[in-house]
Amino acid sequence: MKKIFYIGALFLWVINMVNAQDSSHFFSKKDLMTFGIYYYPEHWDSSEWERDIKNISDLGFQFIHIAEFSWIDMEPEEGKYDFKWLDTVIGLATKYHLKVVLGTPTSISPVWMGIKYPEIYLLNSNYQRAEHGTRGVQSLSNPVWRDFSKKIITQMGQRYGNNAAVIGWQLDNEPEGKEDYSPSSQLAFQIWLKNKYQTIAALNNAWGTAFWSQTFSDFSQIKIYNANLVGWWGTNPHALLDFKRYTADTQADFLDFQATILRSLVSKNQYVTTNYTAISAGADPRRTHKLDFNSFTSYPNKGNANIGDKGFRLGDPKELSFALSFFKQEHTNAGIMELQPGYVNWGAVNPLLEPGTVRMWLYHCFGGNLSFACSYRYRQINYSSEQYHAGIMKLDGVTLSQGGKEYQQAISEMKILLKAYNPEAKIPNEIQARKTALLWNYDNYWSMGRQGQTTQWNTLPFFQKYLEMAKSFGAPVDIVYENDNLNEYK
Amino acid sequence: MKKIFYIGALFLWVINMVNAQDSSHFFSKKDLMTFGIYYYPEHWDSSEWERDIKNISDLGFQFIHIAEFSWIDMEPEEGKYDFKWLDTVIGLATKYHLKVVLGTPTSISPVWMGIKYPEIYLLNSNYQRAEHGTRGVQSLSNPVWRDFSKKIITQMGQRYGNNAAVIGWQLDNEPEGKEDYSPSSQLAFQIWLKNKYQTIAALNNAWGTAFWSQTFSDFSQIKIYNANLVGWWGTNPHALLDFKRYTADTQADFLDFQATILRSLVSKNQYVTTNYTAISAGADPRRTHKLDFNSFTSYPNKGNANIGDKGFRLGDPKELSFALSFFKQEHTNAGIMELQPGYVNWGAVNPLLEPGTVRMWLYHCFGGNLSFACSYRYRQINYSSEQYHAGIMKLDGVTLSQGGKEYQQAISEMKILLKAYNPEAKIPNEIQARKTALLWNYDNYWSMGRQGQTTQWNTLPFFQKYLEMAKSFGAPVDIVYENDNLNEYK
Amino acid sequence: MKKIFYIGALFLWVINMVNAQDSSHFFSKKDLMTFGIYYYPEHWDSSEWERDIKNISDLGFQFIHIAEFSWIDMEPEEGKYDFKWLDTVIGLATKYHLKVVLGTPTSISPVWMGIKYPEIYLLNSNYQRAEHGTRGVQSLSNPVWRDFSKKIITQMGQRYGNNAAVIGWQLDNEPEGKEDYSPSSQLAFQIWLKNKYQTIAALNNAWGTAFWSQTFSDFSQIKIYNANLVGWWGTNPHALLDFKRYTADTQADFLDFQATILRSLVSKNQYVTTNYTAISAGADPRRTHKLDFNSFTSYPNKGNANIGDKGFRLGDPKELSFALSFFKQEHTNAGIMELQPGYVNWGAVNPLLEPGTVRMWLYHCFGGNLSFACSYRYRQINYSSEQYHAGIMKLDGVTLSQGGKEYQQAISEMKILLKAYNPEAKIPNEIQARKTALLWNYDNYWSMGRQGQTTQWNTLPFFQKYLEMAKSFGAPVDIVYENDNLNEYK
Repeated sequence: MKKIFYIGALFLWVINMVNAQDSSHFFSKKDLMTFGIYYYPEHWDSSEWERDIKNISDLGFQFIHIAEFSWIDMEPEEGKYDFKWLDTVIGLATKYHLKVVLGTPTSISPVWMGIKYPEIYLLNSNYQRAEHGTRGVQSLSNPVWRDFSKKIITQMGQRYGNNAAVIGWQLDNEPEGKEDYSPSSQLAFQIWLKNKYQTIAALNNAWGTAFWSQTFSDFSQIKIYNANLVGWWGTNPHALLDFKRYTADTQADFLDFQATILRSLVSKNQYVTTNYTAISAGADPRRTHKLDFNSFTSYPNKGNANIGDKGFRLGDPKELSFALSFFKQEHTNAGIMELQPGYVNWGAVNPLLEPGTVRMWLYHCFGGNLSFACSYRYRQINYSSEQYHAGIMKLDGVTLSQGGKEYQQAISEMKILLKAYNPEAKIPNEIQARKTALLWNYDNYWSMGRQGQTTQWNTLPFFQKYLEMAKSFGAPVDIVYENDNLNEYK
Repeated sequence: MKKIFYIGALFLWVINMVNAQDSSHFFSKKDLMTFGIYYYPEHWDSSEWERDIKNISDLGFQFIHIAEFSWIDMEPEEGKYDFKWLDTVIGLATKYHLKVVLGTPTSISPVWMGIKYPEIYLLNSNYQRAEHGTRGVQSLSNPVWRDFSKKIITQMGQRYGNNAAVIGWQLDNEPEGKEDYSPSSQLAFQIWLKNKYQTIAALNNAWGTAFWSQTFSDFSQIKIYNANLVGWWGTNPHALLDFKRYTADTQADFLDFQATILRSLVSKNQYVTTNYTAISAGADPRRTHKLDFNSFTSYPNKGNANIGDKGFRLGDPKELSFALSFFKQEHTNAGIMELQPGYVNWGAVNPLLEPGTVRMWLYHCFGGNLSFACSYRYRQINYSSEQYHAGIMKLDGVTLSQGGKEYQQAISEMKILLKAYNPEAKIPNEIQARKTALLWNYDNYWSMGRQGQTTQWNTLPFFQKYLEMAKSFGAPVDIVYENDNLNEYK
Repeated sequence: MKKIFYIGALFLWVINMVNAQDSSHFFSKKDLMTFGIYYYPEHWDSSEWERDIKNISDLGFQFIHIAEFSWIDMEPEEGKYDFKWLDTVIGLATKYHLKVVLGTPTSISPVWMGIKYPEIYLLNSNYQRAEHGTRGVQSLSNPVWRDFSKKIITQMGQRYGNNAAVIGWQLDNEPEGKEDYSPSSQLAFQIWLKNKYQTIAALNNAWGTAFWSQTFSDFSQIKIYNANLVGWWGTNPHALLDFKRYTADTQADFLDFQATILRSLVSKNQYVTTNYTAISAGADPRRTHKLDFNSFTSYPNKGNANIGDKGFRLGDPKELSFALSFFKQEHTNAGIMELQPGYVNWGAVNPLLEPGTVRMWLYHCFGGNLSFACSYRYRQINYSSEQYHAGIMKLDGVTLSQGGKEYQQAISEMKILLKAYNPEAKIPNEIQARKTALLWNYDNYWSMGRQGQTTQWNTLPFFQKYLEMAKSFGAPVDIVYENDNLNEYK
């Protein structure tokens, strides 16, 4: 079984070697695929930082990924910033020849902010305000939240925008387009609708409000249709679809908002990206306009797949396969920002991985033509909601985990591959000619998810099955949007 | 399999031919069973109205059913009424010799009303106020809601109460007795309890408040027992049963309230009815006193039955069979207001119907001695939460659907049957003598639903099984209440 | 099958005969095991009280258990107390040579209290305030609630603290440590944390707030982490564990608060206890310091076990077996306060018990070395949420139920056993030497329940399986805490 996967991985790699994007100014194909790792200095005593960073460098990693969840460390009180700790860490990275990817910390607000400005939190469909302690629960349409975000990003951009060690920025974390029923969002939705439809008559027509006496006479009458209260089957599907679109647009706008701030401050050599989840159900990676490229995260084994006799410990190959095609567009097939390093702790079941699985995934990534493969996270910690989630290092901080060893092996093998790399190699014409594409449309994906003719309907596996079949013919497969140039696919 | 159903249908028909209600002044047995269809002019461009209405007439339908969900079209702003569109449609019906059943539009309030008077919405058991966009979510005990309802019904009654084309009125839509925890309802419940028990001591005794220190000293201390908060198994079942009774009474009172208004304005030749769901779990059709008769709606195939090898596409025969007995009382076995015309879209699974199924159901209805069979709806539309719900016509508005063709066939066959109709025919005495009844009691139905000795208990199928067995002996079966005259059943 | 159970029961009995606690001043081993029964005079007309109490005495019961849910009867209006009815009942008990266990009524507040002081109710994790009609939903940290509790307990203690018939007090009812998100509880939690950690730095360290930017700068910033809102997998497990500990401590404190009041007022011959559920998931019986001992309640058959071919009607033997070991500590293995007397009505399925089951359980209790076995309840009633829950007497109040007959038999047999009782008997040394213990730790139990590596994990059955195996070797098994003296277990 395992053999098939390896061959599959290798096969993709051969195909994609030549499909490679021509040199962007961020990545060079002469590096093939570089390796990075998430590191959280704030989790550890500062006395351990140098040891850890040196070890990361010694393992062959080329960059570290830091600061993504550390707002409280950078702004412990409103308006009082502290970057000394970050200076130290970036200094250590420089010393050990590691590059740095910086995360903007907007995935989690510091506790003082939510106490003084509770409006920064989103409201769920029960109109309950989100609370401190988790990530991704801010109201992206809220002006106070935007203002605080702007300030911290400006501080970071000014300080590190021309630091030679810093190669790029990751905005926020796993943006997912979370539904927000807060007053800020209600108002933003009305404005979004007005921009889209111009007249209320056009909205009435598009939403079919003639059905069930729903007709509006003014945009100000519109409240987000709340399927939780209005009732699932009876809720206007067009209104709900627009809410999904609005939510995806709002997510994209918040990312563009951050990118615009950074771009005005940082070097052209530093890239700006974000890390979508492999299956990005609510956030559409094509809706942003200011990012240099998209990256993604993938956790193929969360105990929900059972393929072959070891499938349970190998995980679901479809997720990564989908992501490698889905994010492969112009500048966007740059890299994977988080690749599962071992067991996780948030699946329904969290199996130990079959040895070789992480290395297999790394070769999948390589076969998928990625320029970098980064993983969450260097050290497993003995506290927090992810204390039972593996890292490259075990709990003692100095012993490689199973996944860590496989990373080490893959890094070594990449050096060997580099020597054999022939930039003149071409993909055979007969294979190239088989080029195919599958059409992806979020409107359809969202609509079918809501109005399947049976509750057993699940759109994604259906799509993935076609994708798998196309790939099984050895055909290069793209996932395209309807406004892409479709002429190149016979 | 299908054959058995046809025979079953025919058999019921033979039996019930003679059981027929003696001529009410609304229906004449010389018509056998008439056919009607729901039409929503507000869904379509007015340029299509005449074509559609002419086609309905040409297909052999005798009446159209309109206006039930169109409050916003009749009162686009508070107090500004507009009936021109309805005049036009009724005029077209007259022109093409179609009769008209008018719906009162109280199932859905217009958006302006809920914005200005949010108290018109009910509160669910989480004390969340209902929202615009669906039907049946108003607080029936709320005075503002009652007042608006009275005004629109008065307008309609005054305008169409003596229109010769109008043969009847359907109040509201599928009244279901929805639980309401709003302040209006809390107060109404206290009043209801005071009317019922007179003294708080009597209530304490009836509710067994001695258990768990629940004793009240005044009606004003009583809040609706909210099983959602108090906890299901531990909530006083007598208090909950009274809440069910109060809710059913409130539903009935709202219907009587409407009927009283109309009766004071409309011709005696126009009937007043409503369309209960076939299984009316919360609204008790016997609790009203002002309606001329009850009608019902039935959707036998929502993907939840699997009887025989084609059962999945034939649907559940028990629902219609139950309804045909349940609504057969004195004046109430008049007709079916909505009969499923094809696939629906709100079941867990929504199968295509086996060809012949709709026609079979129509003969069931005829066998059940109905005076009319009306269906939801003439045209399938390409928007709304019911866009994937069949109609008599397909999406183009001029092509008959499978169900439409079966309607057409049944209408033709009814004309043939009419010629063969012998008003002197009698049911054989030996069959008549087998007359049986099953006793139905909402108090028991509600109580058993709440306090079954196992969570797997389901009262209705148990009752339906007995009903089916009794019918299988060829015995005329009634469903009776305990205060009915039971002497006629040996 | 049944035989095995009987042998099992007998076996435990032989072992434990000699393990008996040396004479406390509340129980005497010369009584072996005494029998009691819950009686609710407030459920019945006072004309039936004497007949019932005489019958209880005639059946051989030694005590009745009264008043636990009757606050409204003792304080019908704020500050107006009425104990005449209780005086009468205790007088009747005295007349018929029955002893009395009095319950404090704090499990349910009277309706007037919640209307005037809504803050006495707890808030659930949706911040919904609990409502009148059930038990155990008060905010134990609320000062108003504490004050009312103090007053009623003081009244009771003063009145019955030296009544010769009264042998003991049961505080509250089945304390379970219910989560409370009310303002009172939020404040109490902050204080609890401050007491525990002293400095916010210590809390930040213990909670690992460095993860996900959760760091606090002051205790006043802390709100109870609400997994319902924050999201289950992502919620800080250390914060949640402290909330469980705080909740258990608050529950224990409320019991100690009551015990302290009573102890200052009542005779030393009257014991103070409470009745934990057999599986006490949220309340830790070892956290109180002022009670004389703990007792427990057990309902082994709630339809969730299927052991052997009659297991469904015999119930789950693990629950009682666990409780008999779990509550066996120093002074705490005193008795069972509620033993299931027949079918219940609140299980998923509520089977009739296999005849002999209640008697079997009584011998299990005896084998478990209990000094008393009391049961809920004397008479089944024909109203309330427990109207379908068996009692010793059937609904007429004078006919023994199946369980009642088995109680009667066991009481008779106890008299025979008493004659054969040899106080000099000793457990054989070879059996005594096998003494084993299982370590129980609530922190682990709560943590594993929240962070199992699979959603299918269930800690308790795992523990019970080891317990069962140890007992199957005929070894005396204790369940110990980590700070117990473990030296005695080889």
